[in-house]
Amino acid sequence: MIPDSLLDAIREPADLRRLPHASLPRVVDELRERLIELGASRGGHFAGSLGVVELTVALHAIFETPRDRIVWDVGHQGYGHKALTGRLDSLAQIRRAEGPSGFLRRSESPFDVFGAGHAGTSISAALGIAEALRRRGEDAHAVAVIGDGGATAGMAFEALNHAGELAALGPALRVVYNENGMSIAPNVGGLSRSGDVRGYCAALGLPVIGPVDGHDLEALLRAVAELRAQSGPAVLHVRTRKGKGFAPAEADPYRWHATGPFERAGGTRPAGTSGPPSWTACFAEALMRIAARDPRVVAITAAMPDGTGIDRFAERFPERVYDVGIAEQHGVTFAAGLASEGLRPVCAIYSSFLQRGFDQIAHDVALQDLPVTFAIDRAGLVGADGPTHHGVLDLAYLRAIPGLVVAAPRDENQLQHLLATAIESGRPFALRFPRGAACGVALDPDPKPLPIGRGELLQDGTDVALVALGKTVPVALAAAARLAAAGVSAAVLDARFVKPLDEERLGELADRIGVVLTVEDHLLAGGFGSAVLELLASRSPGTRVRRIGIDDRFVEHAEQDDQWRQVGLDVATIADAALAALAASAPPGGRQSERGRR
Amino acid sequence: MIPDSLLDAIREPADLRRLPHASLPRVVDELRERLIELGASRGGHFAGSLGVVELTVALHAIFETPRDRIVWDVGHQGYGHKALTGRLDSLAQIRRAEGPSGFLRRSESPFDVFGAGHAGTSISAALGIAEALRRRGEDAHAVAVIGDGGATAGMAFEALNHAGELAALGPALRVVYNENGMSIAPNVGGLSRSGDVRGYCAALGLPVIGPVDGHDLEALLRAVAELRAQSGPAVLHVRTRKGKGFAPAEADPYRWHATGPFERAGGTRPAGTSGPPSWTACFAEALMRIAARDPRVVAITAAMPDGTGIDRFAERFPERVYDVGIAEQHGVTFAAGLASEGLRPVCAIYSSFLQRGFDQIAHDVALQDLPVTFAIDRAGLVGADGPTHHGVLDLAYLRAIPGLVVAAPRDENQLQHLLATAIESGRPFALRFPRGAACGVALDPDPKPLPIGRGELLQDGTDVALVALGKTVPVALAAAARLAAAGVSAAVLDARFVKPLDEERLGELADRIGVVLTVEDHLLAGGFGSAVLELLASRSPGTRVRRIGIDDRFVEHAEQDDQWRQVGLDVATIADAALAALAASAPPGGRQSERGRR
Repeated sequence: MIPDSLLDAIREPADLRRLPHASLPRVVDELRERLIELGASRGGHFAGSLGVVELTVALHAIFETPRDRIVWDVGHQGYGHKALTGRLDSLAQIRRAEGPSGFLRRSESPFDVFGAGHAGTSISAALGIAEALRRRGEDAHAVAVIGDGGATAGMAFEALNHAGELAALGPALRVVYNENGMSIAPNVGGLSRSGDVRGYCAALGLPVIGPVDGHDLEALLRAVAELRAQSGPAVLHVRTRKGKGFAPAEADPYRWHATGPFERAGGTRPAGTSGPPSWTACFAEALMRIAARDPRVVAITAAMPDGTGIDRFAERFPERVYDVGIAEQHGVTFAAGLASEGLRPVCAIYSSFLQRGFDQIAHDVALQDLPVTFAIDRAGLVGADGPTHHGVLDLAYLRAIPGLVVAAPRDENQLQHLLATAIESGRPFALRFPRGAACGVALDPDPKPLPIGRGELLQDGTDVALVALGKTVPVALAAAARLAAAGVSAAVLDARFVKPLDEERLGELADRIGVVLTVEDHLLAGGFGSAVLELLASRSPGTRVRRIGIDDRFVEHAEQDDQWRQVGLDVATIADAALAALAASAPPGGRQSERGRR
Repeated sequence: MIPDSLLDAIREPADLRRLPHASLPRVVDELRERLIELGASRGGHFAGSLGVVELTVALHAIFETPRDRIVWDVGHQGYGHKALTGRLDSLAQIRRAEGPSGFLRRSESPFDVFGAGHAGTSISAALGIAEALRRRGEDAHAVAVIGDGGATAGMAFEALNHAGELAALGPALRVVYNENGMSIAPNVGGLSRSGDVRGYCAALGLPVIGPVDGHDLEALLRAVAELRAQSGPAVLHVRTRKGKGFAPAEADPYRWHATGPFERAGGTRPAGTSGPPSWTACFAEALMRIAARDPRVVAITAAMPDGTGIDRFAERFPERVYDVGIAEQHGVTFAAGLASEGLRPVCAIYSSFLQRGFDQIAHDVALQDLPVTFAIDRAGLVGADGPTHHGVLDLAYLRAIPGLVVAAPRDENQLQHLLATAIESGRPFALRFPRGAACGVALDPDPKPLPIGRGELLQDGTDVALVALGKTVPVALAAAARLAAAGVSAAVLDARFVKPLDEERLGELADRIGVVLTVEDHLLAGGFGSAVLELLASRSPGTRVRRIGIDDRFVEHAEQDDQWRQVGLDVATIADAALAALAASAPPGGRQSERGRR
């Protein structure tokens, strides 16, 4: 009896490998259809997985997974892999708190041999795995699957180059180079233009099979078998179409890289809910306003024109945008080069991806005091993308860098002013803002510079000072309102700048009130509250400082609001912490209070 | 009249360009001779500059510097450039506090159009410069000079790939690819093995001139003129011999990359002064001891086997070493791959270079809780190499990463124990230690694990607690002795771990003594003292904490001891700070002290 669904009968890849090859086209069709249904009903990363359905089936059919290890780059394209490795049913919950990660996770499955989220890591990881296999004489393979977008990352080159060095040892590294012409946006770079994957890999000492049509399953199965049979590191060059099998996604894979739920038939997406524009959109708008009056402004994106709003900027100023590829290291130093000649580059890069450019920010920008602005989107907790994508290290690593200004706006009006501040300051300047909808406040007609290092006292008080930053400011205000209802008078300071801190206002509050509570959407170690502690320890010792933020852990994927609650960035927790801080600072037995003694 | 020295008459490159080409060989000879004399008398980066004497002369002879911008990668090879650009006489003071930097510095000369120190940045910077020139219609060139070693850095690939993307716009980027087969050590990588620079660049869409013999001045002048005449980005492939013209350096360019003073005639170097072995040597010894008993241990270096001591390890365990090239990003994730399969890799990377691997430490190692040990040499202030090479950001960026253990040994015996702790912990673990001579203490027979997060109270006291870390511990002990002479009783705690901190011992000291002074060879923002502040603010509020460390600035090149004094890391400053903290914490008018009240 032929089952209704071959796919449902595949609980693990071994089941797939028991099928005759003649059945695999049906598996491909079923899997593709299921992924489209999933996308329609649930959304998620969409076009990438559709493009590699045949490849996913072929890899699991030919390689003995999980004994042979497949390392998927980034993981955007891993939904089919999840479906074939025991997670078909749970895919309906993907990216939700109770469901699978949107990327690969070692903790999720023995078939996810190496986690992913940031691009370009797969060859490095797979080469390490292949070397470990070789050392213990295990006859298995490590297969990295990387797109031509991911291959623009310098570390992918580093890994290929190292693989060429190690070729004589014969580690069983296999690289599938999946050329679909796309990062999220259309791919860039000389290699993408030339398409000469064979020449590139040959120069690095690596043999190349292909190119093979990644939608010709029979040819692909042959090619993957040939790849497996190589000795030593080898590359299979596959050409695929991102979004394959769903016409709207094939036609516009850029827009269909990720999607919310949509109508299966025509691909119609429901109109966005009305509400405030995103922080990203507000940033793009502000940048356009400033660029319109300042011809020195140019924008840099690292393969994320959509996510950073640089695509909107590019529509208006097409000659003033650089997409450098997934190349944050180069992007930062390229910006420094532009700045050294009088331009005012704005690097629009997600917080977690800018980690790749840390050394360049310190060594090429800050040390040379060059006027590069870092517009850091997706700072703080990002929701469904989870721990690889949170921007919760930026304040710690940026504020340590001498001379760098670090700021965060509490709303989109302040965003435009801080962006003007950054660009006109002539200094290295980092500006972070979160994912999601901005506040819906009115914009002043013109972005204009604010005094660097000046916070804003939004509300005065006498019992406790809430010192907040960026997106936590409205939460702190709400906590202050709750405290007021409980008879506690809270001052609320929007610090605006993490570096330099507003010593005058902070010091005055500390001296007068004596109890300070800092609030930040960032790890507590080395973050904003830590900066406040540093200042007050020397400026106003004896001040009681408590800090609200993320303790020492990785925050799992969930709705963004839930994550904020999880880490205690909600009104009730903040208000309770303020009360606790007050209680702790009041000496027992009615003794004169700390602050009273000053 | 022919002057005695053509070289001395060249005050700037325009003087060079006024000479007939027939005189240039003499300039080359004079310059090379002067560089050898300089090396013999003063030491410094030696072999690199000797290898590019002809190239340096040819570039300044053909390009209209400084209108044409030359960007030297790293700067090791920039001594000849300095000599031809008005700094011939000051070279005698190179790398000293009063003299020029050992690298390129924008602040030093208009001919140093972009600073350097870390490898692989030049093409990015030059492409940014070339784009800025193109935008304002300036008919000038930006020339990056990069070695095949520097080109193993992923960002150099990213920049070449971006140059290929921009080729149609025609930015006047020129890249001189100087192949000498060396990083500091012999170069590695598939590209280095194949030597197929033309194929590599062609795949990225860039035309290549050459290869040209970089010591054939006439051919070189023609090739550089041809390079200059290109339209759009182009590469000149030059082959040179590192150390050219000084036989001992030609024979062993690895050993002659940098040198102290030596005897001009035979290249004899004076025997090293006797004294304790370096921290690096102690690390290598400890690693060998541990590797001898633990077959899981493998070592990774990013093109620095000499500087990190991995060369010694490699002599004993040649099969257990990976030199990944100047590829810290890859090196870290490669280590994570090895660790995911049960090995215990040790990444031996200088602190300032590990900045390149920050994202990978967080994303690939810590998030996946993989047992990679980071053996971080050159932490703290490094002396003559100056601000590009200080390791004064590591505590801030590492301790922010969830789950990562961060430690620092106070002497080489603790180093071996902490290294065993790291490797046997099964956790992501960072261990930092400084440049220079270790302490000369005796080693216990076997490295054995210490309790993670446990400090060591070296001396008890009652008035003030000095809390130190790593190399600052002996200084804190000396400060305590000075305080004792002044009648002040100081406790000294060696924290050993920055993360997790020793809450028990720190808390006990804080509660009992009430005044804490932290000492660290690191920037104050987010560093060790900041971690102590964080802990005590919640654990023991009311403790007075003062911090000694580096304030918000880049510390210029000088002798290491002088740098320590400059930033206040000397016995007198620490003792004075302790006295000041005590005075500030004692209430005026003999009122009962803070700590007395508890």
